[in-house]
Amino acid sequence: MIRLAALGEPLVQLNAVTPGPLRYVNYFERHVAGSEANFCVAAVMAGASCGLVARVGDDEFGRAILEYLRGRGVDVSRVKVDGEAPTGIYFVQRHYPVPGRSVLVYYRRGSAGSRLSPEDVDVGYLRSADAVHSTGITLAISESAREAVYLAFEHAARRTFDTNIRPALWRSPEAAREAVLRALRGGVEVLFTDPDDTKIVLGTADPEEAYRRYRELGVDTLVYKEGARGAYVFHDGGRYFRRAYAVPVEDPTGAGDAMAGYFTALYLSGAPPERALDLAAAASTLVVTVRGDNEAVPAPAEAERLLSSL
Amino acid sequence: MIRLAALGEPLVQLNAVTPGPLRYVNYFERHVAGSEANFCVAAVMAGASCGLVARVGDDEFGRAILEYLRGRGVDVSRVKVDGEAPTGIYFVQRHYPVPGRSVLVYYRRGSAGSRLSPEDVDVGYLRSADAVHSTGITLAISESAREAVYLAFEHAARRTFDTNIRPALWRSPEAAREAVLRALRGGVEVLFTDPDDTKIVLGTADPEEAYRRYRELGVDTLVYKEGARGAYVFHDGGRYFRRAYAVPVEDPTGAGDAMAGYFTALYLSGAPPERALDLAAAASTLVVTVRGDNEAVPAPAEAERLLSSL
Amino acid sequence: MIRLAALGEPLVQLNAVTPGPLRYVNYFERHVAGSEANFCVAAVMAGASCGLVARVGDDEFGRAILEYLRGRGVDVSRVKVDGEAPTGIYFVQRHYPVPGRSVLVYYRRGSAGSRLSPEDVDVGYLRSADAVHSTGITLAISESAREAVYLAFEHAARRTFDTNIRPALWRSPEAAREAVLRALRGGVEVLFTDPDDTKIVLGTADPEEAYRRYRELGVDTLVYKEGARGAYVFHDGGRYFRRAYAVPVEDPTGAGDAMAGYFTALYLSGAPPERALDLAAAASTLVVTVRGDNEAVPAPAEAERLLSSL
Amino acid sequence: MIRLAALGEPLVQLNAVTPGPLRYVNYFERHVAGSEANFCVAAVMAGASCGLVARVGDDEFGRAILEYLRGRGVDVSRVKVDGEAPTGIYFVQRHYPVPGRSVLVYYRRGSAGSRLSPEDVDVGYLRSADAVHSTGITLAISESAREAVYLAFEHAARRTFDTNIRPALWRSPEAAREAVLRALRGGVEVLFTDPDDTKIVLGTADPEEAYRRYRELGVDTLVYKEGARGAYVFHDGGRYFRRAYAVPVEDPTGAGDAMAGYFTALYLSGAPPERALDLAAAASTLVVTVRGDNEAVPAPAEAERLLSSL
Amino acid sequence: MIRLAALGEPLVQLNAVTPGPLRYVNYFERHVAGSEANFCVAAVMAGASCGLVARVGDDEFGRAILEYLRGRGVDVSRVKVDGEAPTGIYFVQRHYPVPGRSVLVYYRRGSAGSRLSPEDVDVGYLRSADAVHSTGITLAISESAREAVYLAFEHAARRTFDTNIRPALWRSPEAAREAVLRALRGGVEVLFTDPDDTKIVLGTADPEEAYRRYRELGVDTLVYKEGARGAYVFHDGGRYFRRAYAVPVEDPTGAGDAMAGYFTALYLSGAPPERALDLAAAASTLVVTVRGDNEAVPAPAEAERLLSSL
Amino acid sequence: MIRLAALGEPLVQLNAVTPGPLRYVNYFERHVAGSEANFCVAAVMAGASCGLVARVGDDEFGRAILEYLRGRGVDVSRVKVDGEAPTGIYFVQRHYPVPGRSVLVYYRRGSAGSRLSPEDVDVGYLRSADAVHSTGITLAISESAREAVYLAFEHAARRTFDTNIRPALWRSPEAAREAVLRALRGGVEVLFTDPDDTKIVLGTADPEEAYRRYRELGVDTLVYKEGARGAYVFHDGGRYFRRAYAVPVEDPTGAGDAMAGYFTALYLSGAPPERALDLAAAASTLVVTVRGDNEAVPAPAEAERLLSSL
Repeated sequence: MIRLAALGEPLVQLNAVTPGPLRYVNYFERHVAGSEANFCVAAVMAGASCGLVARVGDDEFGRAILEYLRGRGVDVSRVKVDGEAPTGIYFVQRHYPVPGRSVLVYYRRGSAGSRLSPEDVDVGYLRSADAVHSTGITLAISESAREAVYLAFEHAARRTFDTNIRPALWRSPEAAREAVLRALRGGVEVLFTDPDDTKIVLGTADPEEAYRRYRELGVDTLVYKEGARGAYVFHDGGRYFRRAYAVPVEDPTGAGDAMAGYFTALYLSGAPPERALDLAAAASTLVVTVRGDNEAVPAPAEAERLLSSL
Repeated sequence: MIRLAALGEPLVQLNAVTPGPLRYVNYFERHVAGSEANFCVAAVMAGASCGLVARVGDDEFGRAILEYLRGRGVDVSRVKVDGEAPTGIYFVQRHYPVPGRSVLVYYRRGSAGSRLSPEDVDVGYLRSADAVHSTGITLAISESAREAVYLAFEHAARRTFDTNIRPALWRSPEAAREAVLRALRGGVEVLFTDPDDTKIVLGTADPEEAYRRYRELGVDTLVYKEGARGAYVFHDGGRYFRRAYAVPVEDPTGAGDAMAGYFTALYLSGAPPERALDLAAAASTLVVTVRGDNEAVPAPAEAERLLSSL
Repeated sequence: MIRLAALGEPLVQLNAVTPGPLRYVNYFERHVAGSEANFCVAAVMAGASCGLVARVGDDEFGRAILEYLRGRGVDVSRVKVDGEAPTGIYFVQRHYPVPGRSVLVYYRRGSAGSRLSPEDVDVGYLRSADAVHSTGITLAISESAREAVYLAFEHAARRTFDTNIRPALWRSPEAAREAVLRALRGGVEVLFTDPDDTKIVLGTADPEEAYRRYRELGVDTLVYKEGARGAYVFHDGGRYFRRAYAVPVEDPTGAGDAMAGYFTALYLSGAPPERALDLAAAASTLVVTVRGDNEAVPAPAEAERLLSSL
Repeated sequence: MIRLAALGEPLVQLNAVTPGPLRYVNYFERHVAGSEANFCVAAVMAGASCGLVARVGDDEFGRAILEYLRGRGVDVSRVKVDGEAPTGIYFVQRHYPVPGRSVLVYYRRGSAGSRLSPEDVDVGYLRSADAVHSTGITLAISESAREAVYLAFEHAARRTFDTNIRPALWRSPEAAREAVLRALRGGVEVLFTDPDDTKIVLGTADPEEAYRRYRELGVDTLVYKEGARGAYVFHDGGRYFRRAYAVPVEDPTGAGDAMAGYFTALYLSGAPPERALDLAAAASTLVVTVRGDNEAVPAPAEAERLLSSL
Repeated sequence: MIRLAALGEPLVQLNAVTPGPLRYVNYFERHVAGSEANFCVAAVMAGASCGLVARVGDDEFGRAILEYLRGRGVDVSRVKVDGEAPTGIYFVQRHYPVPGRSVLVYYRRGSAGSRLSPEDVDVGYLRSADAVHSTGITLAISESAREAVYLAFEHAARRTFDTNIRPALWRSPEAAREAVLRALRGGVEVLFTDPDDTKIVLGTADPEEAYRRYRELGVDTLVYKEGARGAYVFHDGGRYFRRAYAVPVEDPTGAGDAMAGYFTALYLSGAPPERALDLAAAASTLVVTVRGDNEAVPAPAEAERLLSSL
Repeated sequence: MIRLAALGEPLVQLNAVTPGPLRYVNYFERHVAGSEANFCVAAVMAGASCGLVARVGDDEFGRAILEYLRGRGVDVSRVKVDGEAPTGIYFVQRHYPVPGRSVLVYYRRGSAGSRLSPEDVDVGYLRSADAVHSTGITLAISESAREAVYLAFEHAARRTFDTNIRPALWRSPEAAREAVLRALRGGVEVLFTDPDDTKIVLGTADPEEAYRRYRELGVDTLVYKEGARGAYVFHDGGRYFRRAYAVPVEDPTGAGDAMAGYFTALYLSGAPPERALDLAAAASTLVVTVRGDNEAVPAPAEAERLLSSL
């Protein structure tokens, strides 16, 4: 079984039970999420093991995160409980102001998770993993978290990365660009990105061009996600496009993380990239049909059932 | 008013309030269902009377079933309360792993309903009905239930039947095939079926071929349901196809039963098969828009309103 | 800032939490609505001020209305609390018998709101408004309410009107036709209507023809709403059509009011009619994605975000 | 089995899901209630048969009432569907402004149920009943309903009556007093009342004195309910007091009706009044622990279980 | 009508729908609260006007606060929208680990509300108020907020204050003590406090002793709250004790604020302190029966109804 | 850290959202429970480790159990997934027919959990535990489960046992008595029981007498639970009684398991029995305030907070 590790902040998500502007939402539903936590759950569902390197607060929400991820089979032995800061949370406003999309409202500044730092990086633990994953979000949440990623990547056997640039978390697009490029420096086995991020990092939104440029930067395989249209995988000079399935959208949050975790686990376990993308796309599709970012990630047999029903 | 009777197990349904894998569903909504109970409700809504021949347990769920069906106007005078076994129940997992479809999880083995037996068959009651209905599910749930159907069909003035083959309830496709064929033996006024079942019973999924073959087996009118595509009625050598209406799906369970009950009631009351199918298709359509298998079966005037809005 | 006033009955809405026939709905969600109250909220969201001239009962639902509208920034200084009659309410049955549409069940006969009368019309207040708005509903709910509209229109600087003919509230189509025509008598700056109402008033459902005829009757600008197809604005001899956006429908109630309030506020504030319609259509679109008639009316920046996402 | 009949208006109840002032209640739960409908359900649970003589509207709420009561085993063959008026409804505000008590807000003026009239009284049906029941509410809702009660009582073998004076429904206490006294005129087998009503009718709140006076007026047995304290039964010159059980109160509405229906059914079936009161008090106790007026009325074996647990 | 003003941070409250540890709560209910906002709502319900001097974020939760308080009739003209920081929020864990009590979990560090500062103090606005209110919470949330209170108190005609010491918000008990004593410096018309706070400020929990000492410090009237036991008012050398009513507790949060706002409004309007305390205690009692801190504050007539029911 | 192991069937619990008879409950809330699973969670919360020896089905409910218990820190490495039978479930009817008590309705016959057998007993695993726990329920669910307990007890270092006799699961009281007595044969460190079970096993309900007799049978310490009254611990010839705290009851199910797990963990870790009982009683108290059998088991610091609040 392939062994993965991911660095990032797990969060409690409070998802609006009803769509529309948050100020008229009377009930919120609690979930556990965070890009890298979602990645881990997806990787585990796809058959890998995955350990999260992170911090949570010494509070009820921190305990909710630990229990949920442990329950899902994620290795939480490297999640530190930080008694000095609260667990980060965020709210999900659904279908407003654009139906089918969500708006995220974070309460994570100064959170325990954002205090992730190089001292949390157990180099031996990361070295023994087959690959180490992180995202542009972890680069953005704090200086210390960013340094933790760089340190971890330095010692990783292989690296996978999701650009995940959230403009609100960055001083400037340039800062994001620079941080992402530095993360790629040691070479990346699989890079996950999308047109918006590519424009920021490379100044283009053309997938072919992006592949060419990223390849020069040491990226081996590129998964280029075009949202509701579908996704490409570029690999070994070739490409494969998987159209997205049209499903009723409850909340698209987490779809990209499901794809990253699922693809990484399958591909590093030896699946051909086309097949890894097909199943990862199925996982990603199911995630948007529910509230919560990772509950609907399927087992491979279920992903197959979805594929064969189409 | 046409008088119908149906044999089968009514069940309490626990429908997932939220879509996705059942293990993350926190709330379940209670309904009363079961293929033949659904048939009866639909028949009553379409203007017929319908009596259910069945058993329920001497427990709260059994009482829930009796009260609900009696409230809906179904004759429950032939539903026996069996003090030795519990009322059967099942869970509905919605939109997972295939969006738009449901997965059913039964707790009905050894249930009161599955203990239906020939001794429950009041021959006089069934003889006085204009037609007697049952389904492949009743043939499958127990040996005694199967015998009850055969006995009832023997004494029935006319028979209608829905193949409804649930592979999980059968030892083998051959067993299902054989049991269904035996049920058709005395001739059937209307047979309801679909491509999957037809393949099992006749080895083909071609509707024309199916009609030809079933006709030879004594089937007068064939309603051939192709799910989200629509449905055919074959009658008197001719055929009529009704396209399904595209609606947002909440839970498709029960759609086929609504069509069977509605069509049977209208058609045996003298409606032309085309018109019976149009209205039955409207009923079937509305059923998929709600949780619960029979609450959204319309009155004929409402079915008309739907048809005229298209 | 443009100042508007509207006459009409605010109501408490009890919206079915689950779709299907009302008799199987176990939970209802409370909202504040009413065509002219919705108009006011939309106008305020679009940047205007708006005062409601109305009555509510001296009861909890009346207080709910006052608090909600005051909270939304609607001027309720001219909403009279009538101690002799209850606040009107209505129920919303959703997606049945036609998926995507709602059926309204009113408990408003003899309500405080229907007792609106000329004595409630503060002429000075209305004169100082840039425009006064009402709808065919207010003409229908009582003789005194109808007279209140006529009196208000007499003193208004400018008038806007939404035909909004609810057949159930009228003795006959002729009565509706006559009352609407009388409302137009002094000339109307913007008329909002749809094919059904146009047929009743003018005997045609052709938009061009309708514009020509209404222009003769003193209508300056015509907004002709074709529901899920889109809407026209006819102005100064020309026309502009805005296609509706396809979104998942939760409850279409209130869409027309959002369009009327949004368009009126923007257009009277000097926006070109095309732009006013574009933004009003965005507001109208969002309203159908939620339960409640006015909670999802966007701020203009949010409406822009929707437009630019398409 | 004893056969009872009751005259009165069944209503749809909308019960606040959360306690406190109605204007902040976001969700309402639908139930079927009405004093005489509650009486019938309680009587059926206690082992009698009971027919309701009433009207409902030709609408979804009317159908909800018919289906629910039919489901509960109440004979609804004498409930007329009145196409001219809506079904009456009411809201329940719980625990405010007095914790443990409810405030009822009615929308029943002009309702179908209030149009009950002597022409709805099937004299043969009522004559064949062992006893006919009604309450002060039916006397209050309309002139025609009052006359219907008097006519029914004239032909009844025996009469039971619950004073149930709701001041809001009466012009004056004198009007209530006079109407109640007239209802007692032909003699009453069992009268149900409480201190408030007794003060209005007899000018005293002393139970012994009330018994003496009512006896002179032709009352055979008096059940005198003192709410959370308990209840007396006066019979044959003697009395018996049953203390109420202390339970957590969800909504006390319907407690009196449960007691009346349960006591009447048991007592007229031959149970000693003490035992009838004990079981009726158990039924009444359970009713206050739930929302909904009659769902928690127990079967006699369950009432026994409660009694034996104390 | 008496005019009041209060300084403090309004917050969005997320109240656990189910009791027990927060990490197993799946649903949260949104309310608007904050000690001084609650004070204002209570004061308005008691017949005063009240303006809140505060900041909220330029976000959905900030808008929720503004709309709710405006709806309730609180003057929000002095609530500044601060674009640089988010609106503060908090979670309520109910009945755990002590049944009947709540635990509050804040996300307010660096919030817009905590950025309240002397520059937000409109001296003219405060001077024209009959009294200015604040609490120990505002003293604790930030240095600038504390200074704002001192500045406002300097210019206030009269001052009322609630000690409200939340240890978690203070560096040390001494810091709290010092800040509270400084707030009392100019004299206080009514001081609200409880045994815990009194021990911190005066080193005693004896009410008589506390009154004597606070009087020396310039406190005119002392309301000494002993929670579920009841409350004293000390005034003019005398004292009056009002026992608390026993009611089922849903969430005690906000009870003290209701008492402070209600008492202040009535007492400054001329009610005798005993009567003001009786009604304020009724208001305080009702608040604990619901989730949400201020929705159940009664109108005086409702408070009377509660008092007279006891 | 003390190491415990327990044998028994974990179940999915469907708890009625509203009180009253199950047939009117519209929504059910899912939890994970089962006497021995509850024991494990309580033991873990009290600071021990605990492994569950059990079977679950290869289905969504089985996965729900595994994920929940793993999340809670229970060692599930010895929970076998049995592909031949479904996971057992049960329903909880609350407050009916006796307020404050629950009725359980099981669907566990033939369940995976009831197929626990000696072959599932990993002798090495159990030997290395400090104590092995089981209950009368496991003895009752099947012959093979009973044998598994006997085998495990044979190899256990120490044994703790909860009599937990559910009459519905036994052929006769004698069968229960005999099976329990056999379980005690090798000596038991702590026995948990109550008056009803003691009457069945020993023919007496007197606690002192029970202690004397059980001591002769090899029981070292006896915890004698008297429900809402409190509990005794008999130890070393002496006894200690802890009164129960009066709290609002949501669902008492699981209270005894919390006491057993908490007491066992603390007592075997060296706490004096009095202190172990005090904290275990606090844990047990909190459990009854929520739906779900184990979510409200406190950490020791929280249990202390409850004790010190009384």
